[in-house]
Amino acid sequence: MKIDHLGIAVESIEQALAFYRTALGLELTHTEVVAEQGVKVAMLPVGESRLELLEPTGSDTPVGKFLAKRGGGIHHICLGVDDLEAVLSRLKAQGIPLIDDKPRVGAEGCLVAFVHPKGTGGVLVELSQKQPQSLSSTEETSSAATHTV
Amino acid sequence: MKIDHLGIAVESIEQALAFYRTALGLELTHTEVVAEQGVKVAMLPVGESRLELLEPTGSDTPVGKFLAKRGGGIHHICLGVDDLEAVLSRLKAQGIPLIDDKPRVGAEGCLVAFVHPKGTGGVLVELSQKQPQSLSSTEETSSAATHTV
Ligand SMILES: [Co+2]
Ligand SMILES: [Co+2]
Repeated sequence: MKIDHLGIAVESIEQALAFYRTALGLELTHTEVVAEQGVKVAMLPVGESRLELLEPTGSDTPVGKFLAKRGGGIHHICLGVDDLEAVLSRLKAQGIPLIDDKPRVGAEGCLVAFVHPKGTGGVLVELSQKQPQSLSSTEETSSAATHTV
Repeated sequence: MKIDHLGIAVESIEQALAFYRTALGLELTHTEVVAEQGVKVAMLPVGESRLELLEPTGSDTPVGKFLAKRGGGIHHICLGVDDLEAVLSRLKAQGIPLIDDKPRVGAEGCLVAFVHPKGTGGVLVELSQKQPQSLSSTEETSSAATHTV
């Protein structure tokens, strides 16, 4: 298991990049607009993980509502797992509340499922499993249609 | 650079472990009470990073106040860097507001400095540099006196 990415809700990707890219020196490898989620995404790898800056395209979007309620900050953490079905079975057996009780196709062709913050101490946790046909991070530019940030 | 750890503020470490340890299967390698910070810490490695569950010892503590204001969730992220002085110089040159404008000794003998959330899109970011005399994660049980979570 590893931290696959941290989703960070920001008012402005451009402003946030002044810190994460210009000052810290992280590389911006990819940006895209995921229209059906109402969000612009900027990805910056850090070690085996990456930061995903999430800027809403409007106030009536999931990330827009998050910002209005809590301000900028960590929106979710994503843990990469080898066998998502097996992990979800263990979570159900433990009575952990799930947002997705079975895997669905998410960003870059990965299988993903979200765990409810009630079961995690308040953190929105995404679980993600790479599939054989998952795109590598350098090939992901055409994945917008299934991107779920 | 890598994600060194995520600090997660929780009402109850015991409850949170039902998810992170029992259900997800992460290993709990270390717990300690850091009296001068008013916090109990539980560390669970995940890949090259680790999760640090932070439970306040009382309501009038930094983590206790965070919980009262925002509820459980990510308290801070810590990025491991090779040369903290150099990174702080770059941040200052870019006008990024800092909580610590020079390194201080933190957890496990590391050098640490916190960046103000105003400069990071709302995230409390800790920067940490291992020192030659830093303790490895298996030797850290005696580091409570300098632990700054
Ligand atoms: Co995500
Ligand atoms: Co910390």
